Amino acid sequence: MTNLEYEYVPIADTVIVEVTRSETKSQGGIILDVTVREQMAKSEGKVLSLGKDAFCDSEDNVKVGDIVLFPRYAGKEIEGFHNGKPEIRAVNDIDIIAIKVPKQ
Amino acid sequence: MTNLEYEYVPIADTVIVEVTRSETKSQGGIILDVTVREQMAKSEGKVLSLGKDAFCDSEDNVKVGDIVLFPRYAGKEIEGFHNGKPEIRAVNDIDIIAIKVPKQ
Amino acid sequence: MTNLEYEYVPIADTVIVEVTRSETKSQGGIILDVTVREQMAKSEGKVLSLGKDAFCDSEDNVKVGDIVLFPRYAGKEIEGFHNGKPEIRAVNDIDIIAIKVPKQ
Amino acid sequence: MTNLEYEYVPIADTVIVEVTRSETKSQGGIILDVTVREQMAKSEGKVLSLGKDAFCDSEDNVKVGDIVLFPRYAGKEIEGFHNGKPEIRAVNDIDIIAIKVPKQ
Amino acid sequence: MTNLEYEYVPIADTVIVEVTRSETKSQGGIILDVTVREQMAKSEGKVLSLGKDAFCDSEDNVKVGDIVLFPRYAGKEIEGFHNGKPEIRAVNDIDIIAIKVPKQ
Amino acid sequence: MTNLEYEYVPIADTVIVEVTRSETKSQGGIILDVTVREQMAKSEGKVLSLGKDAFCDSEDNVKVGDIVLFPRYAGKEIEGFHNGKPEIRAVNDIDIIAIKVPKQ
Amino acid sequence: MTNLEYEYVPIADTVIVEVTRSETKSQGGIILDVTVREQMAKSEGKVLSLGKDAFCDSEDNVKVGDIVLFPRYAGKEIEGFHNGKPEIRAVNDIDIIAIKVPKQ
Repeated sequence: MTNLEYEYVPIADTVIVEVTRSETKSQGGIILDVTVREQMAKSEGKVLSLGKDAFCDSEDNVKVGDIVLFPRYAGKEIEGFHNGKPEIRAVNDIDIIAIKVPKQ
Repeated sequence: MTNLEYEYVPIADTVIVEVTRSETKSQGGIILDVTVREQMAKSEGKVLSLGKDAFCDSEDNVKVGDIVLFPRYAGKEIEGFHNGKPEIRAVNDIDIIAIKVPKQ
Repeated sequence: MTNLEYEYVPIADTVIVEVTRSETKSQGGIILDVTVREQMAKSEGKVLSLGKDAFCDSEDNVKVGDIVLFPRYAGKEIEGFHNGKPEIRAVNDIDIIAIKVPKQ
Repeated sequence: MTNLEYEYVPIADTVIVEVTRSETKSQGGIILDVTVREQMAKSEGKVLSLGKDAFCDSEDNVKVGDIVLFPRYAGKEIEGFHNGKPEIRAVNDIDIIAIKVPKQ
Repeated sequence: MTNLEYEYVPIADTVIVEVTRSETKSQGGIILDVTVREQMAKSEGKVLSLGKDAFCDSEDNVKVGDIVLFPRYAGKEIEGFHNGKPEIRAVNDIDIIAIKVPKQ
Repeated sequence: MTNLEYEYVPIADTVIVEVTRSETKSQGGIILDVTVREQMAKSEGKVLSLGKDAFCDSEDNVKVGDIVLFPRYAGKEIEGFHNGKPEIRAVNDIDIIAIKVPKQ
Repeated sequence: MTNLEYEYVPIADTVIVEVTRSETKSQGGIILDVTVREQMAKSEGKVLSLGKDAFCDSEDNVKVGDIVLFPRYAGKEIEGFHNGKPEIRAVNDIDIIAIKVPKQ
């Protein structure tokens, strides 16, 4: 789906996502401190693959293709955003906050 | 209820709240240090949804629609306060301090 | 008892207290360092309500109405001290140090 | 025994002591760094009361009236040293280092 | 395979890799903070040997010869990159993020 | 044995030692950083008494009278080095590194 | 073997080594930050003795006489490098990274 030369097989509880939206800081109401706003910011990404232990102890149903939310600076970058290729990030499953679903 | 384009399905023990009141610092009596006052400040929010593991080990009865209290800077911002839309925050269940109930 | 518009139902092991006496720093003998004196300072409060898990693993008998001692900066402020209303604090049960009882 | 207006009932593993001797820093031989000397300093105190869980997992026999040693800055001050009243400190049982016994 | 004078027998959960690609910082989209970009950067390496406990609790199939990804500054350097010899790194198994596989 | 006015009964896993040799920093070869050299320095002491839990989970045979090695700044000072009296230190059993035995 | 006046009996999981090679920083390729290079540096040493608990939970076969690798600043110095005597270090078993074996 994403135009990558390599496949990345996530280890243990790692979730590999294609970052689809990132914010450098929260948009939030009355928070004045920039550092706090950065800590509260989130990113969104499409799940590309899940490690064998990802979400293995939970009842959460996170699937390949889901849009998930995670803290802005969670995980490690596997491929950077450049030359039209998307940013690929490896995120720990406990850093996934929510699945984003369009309202019907 | 809140006018959102997306539904957010909270993962694990995450609680998704619509922030209804935020204070940047405690109002408190004799505390002089601003940093301490910020650390002691709380926010209020209406519970929108609860992850499957939220409060699963406790006897606490937190329901969708409850007004709950949590530390000012707990959690991650899912949607910011702008364009008339409310701030949506993902908060861990152990950060919820109390349910606020009008006195009868 | 306290003149509040709302009732706060404490979650888990939270103890809600009305702060009755706060010291900004210890009175203590030979401690010269102000930071240390602040860390050693205590507050006193009247217990308003106890979460369902508060003191559930201990034999301690802490009841609503008891005057308890806790570190000066423990917990989160639920209502600030202003307009004649008392400061209400949510404190974790493990931060409660002692019950204060008038000598008979 | 100590001339206090209140009795303090220690919670859990708290030990309430009347501080009888405090040093601001170690007397020690060749340590030049004042911060280190402060960290290594100890206080002495007479045990006034013991929480129900204090020393419950150990074979140590610490009793009311014993003179015990603890780090200089351990615990929280319950009453400060002033107006001829002693300093009363609440110390965690794991911070008690030793019992001091006059040689016979 | 790599031209080394010594063989290194990894202990416990250590994985010994020949570093094949290192980035000093993430290439990532909108992250402006250099420190954060360095923390998110990754390295790649070829697995030379695996300690007896490496991945012993997981179903992950990491084998000698695999190209694996790990944080840029994970582990300890066993041999440095100089005189045409590769950099050899000892990395803990929990720091391995993913296996990189060419797409077929 | 040591000329002390008091006996100190060590609590739990505490080991009371009479410090016999202290170094302010390591003598070590090529370490240039003084802070690191201080962290790596050790002291020596003669064991005066052992708490009831000291070394209770190990097969190590540490006895009263042994010369033991411990980090330079481990433990708390019970009596300082002055007026010809030795420095007495309370050290946690897990901080004891080795027993020093003259070669025969 | 090493010309020492004393024998050191390692406690618990301590490994006593004679340091045979130390590097103040990694030789590594593109790491520019000196602090990071120091953190990644390793030392080598010959195993002199092993505590009774050293490697007791692992299948690793570390023996007296082995050359082992450990982080540059791991452990405590028992004897410094001076007057022709080697540096003796006490290292925790979990800090041992690998055994170095000449290739045959």
